[in-house]
Amino acid sequence: MSATTEMKTLDTMHHVAVPVSDVKGTVDWYTKNFDCNVKYQDETWSLVEFANISLAFVLPEQHPPHLALLRDPAAYGEPKTHRDGTRSVYLQDPSGNKVEILALG
Amino acid sequence: MSATTEMKTLDTMHHVAVPVSDVKGTVDWYTKNFDCNVKYQDETWSLVEFANISLAFVLPEQHPPHLALLRDPAAYGEPKTHRDGTRSVYLQDPSGNKVEILALG
Repeated sequence: MSATTEMKTLDTMHHVAVPVSDVKGTVDWYTKNFDCNVKYQDETWSLVEFANISLAFVLPEQHPPHLALLRDPAAYGEPKTHRDGTRSVYLQDPSGNKVEILALG
Repeated sequence: MSATTEMKTLDTMHHVAVPVSDVKGTVDWYTKNFDCNVKYQDETWSLVEFANISLAFVLPEQHPPHLALLRDPAAYGEPKTHRDGTRSVYLQDPSGNKVEILALG
């Protein structure tokens, strides 16, 4: 006999891209104040890893702020393959927030 | 003999509060498209749980968008105790993003 409680497997957020005005200054502030790892950084964006999720700090003119969720992008449209081998489709929620459906390489 | 590689314990993001124009319409869209659980919802905000983090969908006039990170808020200022027993302090990063330092009840 099995319990009837439904255990739903929830989707995972891979990263949240947050708009910033100064990538280096922002990254320096987070690494000074918190325990996190800088995985990538240039003048236009940076990827900073926390225990459960990464934050992307982005110049919004160059990299639009968004939420990125791990799912098969082909189920939502025609995926774009990025230089790092990841594939994704961008959606918009009803409030205009961009949601990236992301498959890692 | 132990390896010399440093294994740093990273901080955990508890939730990200995302601005929306329509709480119900936004929550309906996420629950229709993805596997997530609605933990709380009223007309001004909602808390939606994913596998690794929760998203708060907020009317920005009533609940400012922010990132919430689990740490002892007393190390950053004078914590405010909320009705649900959680305590927090709000900081601002150099780009003006609000960061809540949150201790659960």
